[in-house]
Amino acid sequence: MTCLLMRAAERAQLAMMLEVCAYPKPGNVDRCHDYPDTRLEHFLASTIFARTALEEAETGTGRIGEIIKHAVRDTNCHKGGNTHFGAFILLIPLVFGKNIAGALSAIEKTDVSDAVAFYKAFAMTSVKMKAADELDVNDPHTLTVIRERDMTLLDVMRHSAENDMVAREWVTGFPLTRRGADLLKQIGSGRQAIVQAFLTLLASEPDTFIIKKHGMEVARQTMLTAREVLDGRYSLEQFDAECIERDINPGSIADIIIASIYTALGEGWSWDY
Amino acid sequence: MTCLLMRAAERAQLAMMLEVCAYPKPGNVDRCHDYPDTRLEHFLASTIFARTALEEAETGTGRIGEIIKHAVRDTNCHKGGNTHFGAFILLIPLVFGKNIAGALSAIEKTDVSDAVAFYKAFAMTSVKMKAADELDVNDPHTLTVIRERDMTLLDVMRHSAENDMVAREWVTGFPLTRRGADLLKQIGSGRQAIVQAFLTLLASEPDTFIIKKHGMEVARQTMLTAREVLDGRYSLEQFDAECIERDINPGSIADIIIASIYTALGEGWSWDY
Repeated sequence: MTCLLMRAAERAQLAMMLEVCAYPKPGNVDRCHDYPDTRLEHFLASTIFARTALEEAETGTGRIGEIIKHAVRDTNCHKGGNTHFGAFILLIPLVFGKNIAGALSAIEKTDVSDAVAFYKAFAMTSVKMKAADELDVNDPHTLTVIRERDMTLLDVMRHSAENDMVAREWVTGFPLTRRGADLLKQIGSGRQAIVQAFLTLLASEPDTFIIKKHGMEVARQTMLTAREVLDGRYSLEQFDAECIERDINPGSIADIIIASIYTALGEGWSWDY
Repeated sequence: MTCLLMRAAERAQLAMMLEVCAYPKPGNVDRCHDYPDTRLEHFLASTIFARTALEEAETGTGRIGEIIKHAVRDTNCHKGGNTHFGAFILLIPLVFGKNIAGALSAIEKTDVSDAVAFYKAFAMTSVKMKAADELDVNDPHTLTVIRERDMTLLDVMRHSAENDMVAREWVTGFPLTRRGADLLKQIGSGRQAIVQAFLTLLASEPDTFIIKKHGMEVARQTMLTAREVLDGRYSLEQFDAECIERDINPGSIADIIIASIYTALGEGWSWDY
């Protein structure tokens, strides 16, 4: 049986579920590893609670900033903290526009109301901005600045792109999302394809979530170790253990892989085997 | 944060997700164990795909047999086979009626159309009837018999109650569902409460899924070993490994525990800790 009639919202939920279950993923929550405060069940609960906002996106009407805010609000109702903020930044336009081309067209149409809603969503999470960011989410003045400059949500992403690879996807046409989807289709079906695609993206770019948390040198070292794992010169299990030990979790690559799985599913990639 | 506004459909999905993630559960698919053809991801995909039918049940209108059929149809679209047929038999009336009292009132109102829809759902699964059952789902004559006798879905459950503890819940007022919910609330929150409640039900009744697959003696022995585990005389991990080795999976108790989690969540039990 295949799911030819899978809805875009279901595809997005399936992508969230498959990403978190895939293992071993160095440093992140997966089937074999919880963080003390954020467990597998929190990611899966968010997957369930995101449904309403994803259905809202699926209609292709309404405002993307507002829908991201709804997704963050609805998945905030557990003790696991932020699980999918970055994933929603990618998934909501992808579901709204059905695919990457549609997402790019949709984000071109964002306006200042989307930017304001997005900052309100951001404020609900514990995600950190770069230190001393001019548009600091914790500074009440930020919304005033956004309104005065009439910034669209795409402008906000342009502002964040240098330091955030998820925001960069908006600005550069979802190239890593596209690459991850192509990798999944090249590698094959199921769990192992997700782990391989994850490692391959991790080996190609420093994860900006790691940069924000630990600095560029740690992110670059993590990227280099991912290359060694891909080349067979280092064990994936050892890499995973080290990342966990040092609290290094490539959260932005995980967000992008979710968008890649969503995209690949829409192009006929099979998660089932 | 708590989810005070959680919808009944979401509560049912959360129950399905929490049950399959809880570990170690002797013999069943859980976070630490897949079957070759049915994996954690299949159970979680069914949890996502069940949403539409659970929302249909949530309206409290329509026909229960038809809604069970929709749930089975919508969750049949992966290669993992039947994951939640027994769970839907309990969850659909519970969501339809909101709680056990409402479910009992709803199942009293089932008629022959529910029974026919249910048998059509049954035929979509690979679930086995007792050998030589008079109402064999694989016998095309069965629907004629049901129609001739004007059997309601509750009558069908009465017919099956002796050999199926899920059907027995309908006939006897959901006593094990109730007991499991009470156990969860007594034991505490989260994953360990689910494992303990599961073991306690397994120690109190022979699982009818095991009886159908391996006979009464194996089911009785499994029940007795569960008692030893509860008494601390036997290791849960060893019990799990033995069940897996011998292909013994207490699937009916798992279905009932899902109904118990749904019920407990509706009464304020916290899965989060």
